[in-house]
Amino acid sequence: MKNKLLIPKQIVTADSQNRILKNHAVEIIDGKIAGIVALKNFIISDYDGELLDYSRFTLIPGFIQTHIHLCQTLFRGFADDLELLDWLQKRIFPFENSHNKNSLKASVQLGLHDLLTGGTTTILDMGTLRHQEIIFEELIGSGMRAYAGNCMIDQNELYPELCESTDENLKSTYELAKVFHNSNNGKIKYGFAPRFVLSCSEKLLKETKEMMKDFPGSIFHTHSSENKKEVETVRQMTGKENVEYFDSIGLLDDHTVLAHCIHLKDKEINSLKNNSVRVAHCPSSNLKLGSGIANIPRYIKEGISVSLGADGAPCNNTLSAFNEMRISALIQKPIYGPTSMDALTVFRLATIEGAKALHLQNEIGSIEVGKKADLVLLDLEKTDQPIQLSDEQIYSSIVYSSGKSNVKAVFADGNLIVDNGKSIIYDEEELVSKAKDELNKLIERKR
Amino acid sequence: MKNKLLIPKQIVTADSQNRILKNHAVEIIDGKIAGIVALKNFIISDYDGELLDYSRFTLIPGFIQTHIHLCQTLFRGFADDLELLDWLQKRIFPFENSHNKNSLKASVQLGLHDLLTGGTTTILDMGTLRHQEIIFEELIGSGMRAYAGNCMIDQNELYPELCESTDENLKSTYELAKVFHNSNNGKIKYGFAPRFVLSCSEKLLKETKEMMKDFPGSIFHTHSSENKKEVETVRQMTGKENVEYFDSIGLLDDHTVLAHCIHLKDKEINSLKNNSVRVAHCPSSNLKLGSGIANIPRYIKEGISVSLGADGAPCNNTLSAFNEMRISALIQKPIYGPTSMDALTVFRLATIEGAKALHLQNEIGSIEVGKKADLVLLDLEKTDQPIQLSDEQIYSSIVYSSGKSNVKAVFADGNLIVDNGKSIIYDEEELVSKAKDELNKLIERKR
Repeated sequence: MKNKLLIPKQIVTADSQNRILKNHAVEIIDGKIAGIVALKNFIISDYDGELLDYSRFTLIPGFIQTHIHLCQTLFRGFADDLELLDWLQKRIFPFENSHNKNSLKASVQLGLHDLLTGGTTTILDMGTLRHQEIIFEELIGSGMRAYAGNCMIDQNELYPELCESTDENLKSTYELAKVFHNSNNGKIKYGFAPRFVLSCSEKLLKETKEMMKDFPGSIFHTHSSENKKEVETVRQMTGKENVEYFDSIGLLDDHTVLAHCIHLKDKEINSLKNNSVRVAHCPSSNLKLGSGIANIPRYIKEGISVSLGADGAPCNNTLSAFNEMRISALIQKPIYGPTSMDALTVFRLATIEGAKALHLQNEIGSIEVGKKADLVLLDLEKTDQPIQLSDEQIYSSIVYSSGKSNVKAVFADGNLIVDNGKSIIYDEEELVSKAKDELNKLIERKR
Repeated sequence: MKNKLLIPKQIVTADSQNRILKNHAVEIIDGKIAGIVALKNFIISDYDGELLDYSRFTLIPGFIQTHIHLCQTLFRGFADDLELLDWLQKRIFPFENSHNKNSLKASVQLGLHDLLTGGTTTILDMGTLRHQEIIFEELIGSGMRAYAGNCMIDQNELYPELCESTDENLKSTYELAKVFHNSNNGKIKYGFAPRFVLSCSEKLLKETKEMMKDFPGSIFHTHSSENKKEVETVRQMTGKENVEYFDSIGLLDDHTVLAHCIHLKDKEINSLKNNSVRVAHCPSSNLKLGSGIANIPRYIKEGISVSLGADGAPCNNTLSAFNEMRISALIQKPIYGPTSMDALTVFRLATIEGAKALHLQNEIGSIEVGKKADLVLLDLEKTDQPIQLSDEQIYSSIVYSSGKSNVKAVFADGNLIVDNGKSIIYDEEELVSKAKDELNKLIERKR
């Protein structure tokens, strides 16, 4: 790979000092950020490599989303205006249960196209019960950095057909982890994913955690405390609060990511803190399913790791990091005041805090020498953006005013994968057409 | 103007039966919808007019936003993470006070470009204290349908410089209304706009209402009950709740639009209902300023007119009807349940309900024969949209998944004003460059 010098208008580093650099360029060698060069005394014409002129655009780190369901992308728009347990029972579980390899592939490709063109370069994905190898194959082909894993379900009162025995779950998961953990030169890691308490036996949860010892660096990824009825049912089943139950069976540590964490007692918040658990905050999903608003300002104040995720397409209904940033800033303000969750704080949740949540802070999440060149270029020179872009306005612009249409280019490991807003890897028309076909067949199978 | 036959993939009519028509075309004659034609028995090649092939796209009525401040667009990103009264005192009032004609023009053009390319074709705008004629001139040149008016302020404890005497306010407003009410062939109407109780004497409010008798069809447009401190101050000043005070001095009727209406007592809600007052709901702004969440499901249930507005760019920070639809749907669900504010309801707020609020329901707001051809074409064939678009998914797609980047074309009075997502009237680069210049000069003046 030829050395590249990427010259943006400015670099929003997301480093520990939140530096915004003007008149600097990023040198990319072997997929990494080899240098951040002041252009003042630098003769560009002498540069012995490829020059990438993005002088109109703002360079930011690729977004990191820590709770995604690629397998659900095909079902966008089919499960609106429903509450979580109905949403699962009537729509999502029957749909997931009807996936075959082809429909799953179509769903994952749709999702990856949407995420990558929207500037997200790393995800933690929860798969479905079957055909997980398809998701890994697509992740590897797409340029996305990911933790992913099959969804484990060994009891399912809501929809009994989407279920396998505890042993089958454990066995197939182990086999998948053996093949895919640290695959694609370490860009893919395993995210063990028991769905949630209501669909997992205690044996499944404990043995999954035990299994992780064979896969160092893997992550335990599940849902917790999303919905009031769910929490009440967990209480009836276990005699404990959701997080308290996880703690009691030894699931909680710094390699555990819990999505949602809305309805928590004080003792559970302490437990998240004491065990260094990672919270994946999914604000659009939490609103749309009527689940509630997590007390994110408190979690951040307590030092709990918080990062963002769009969840699945049917409960959002976008996969846009921009939407999650904007909404996560806006929803707290009527409760905790307009100065809570300022734009900079929120931008960090979508970048470096996401990296920390996944123990990737030495590789991604900020623009610093030695990190992977997962980079996004934004066009902020538009009538729908702040007209002056001093440091304050840059974060405002990204968090409050931007969307997918501002994404000009995306690099993953230094490779250009989105150019002029278009994917280089996928053909959008073809994906949509294939997805229509697969969705029709899936709906037939579901009948 | 040549007759046109516009052939979309489907027509989302927003008519009283919420019909979605496939295999139909819209005939446009003299800027109006002259016919909605079933294509089944129609020989297109025989058509004696211009054929507009939009067979990939979904046709919807232009969006209507009932609370906008075009004059503030230039200040986007300069007033983040502040509460309403600080936001006014420290940022917005000093900025507005520093406008000259050129900076105001730049601000209005930015806003109109943003709104029109985002599919909004009608607004109710609140101007600033001075240079209102600039706003009217730009509205007329842009193709936007509008009620607009200078902002009236005859007392201003927050920022005394932005203030004129009661008589000056009344006189200049009367002169403006004489010139601009029903101008541009009736496309522009006057929206009398005393800012809010805290900056208006009782005399100003009453005489403005009285003045409206000389301008039949004009509208009374102000802010009400946005912020808890504001409401408390109104109570101290008048001994009454905000809406109750307006009622007591005869301001409330079906030609009154009140923006926000968040903090209302039961008696005030009854007063809105009994007086057929129009509520302009601004959900992004209400979140961002930490103002609160208006009980919109209740207002709708009570039969109160509710429509949507993005407010000003600095408190949103977009002017996107899509964002307002999505947020207005999402924020109610944790409070009133996930089935509240479904996608269809919200789509109607942004179209036909906006038209009704402004007494324009016979002219715009739905796609029906005889109405003005204010029309928007959306590209919903994308990986970030529902893959199957039956009726349920179409509303979902527009409300939950779409944004400005889905807007393909916009017609105002049958004239194409946005083509392939680009304004035909404005050059975006030029607007941004002019705006930068004017903003710098304004910041100098403000010092």
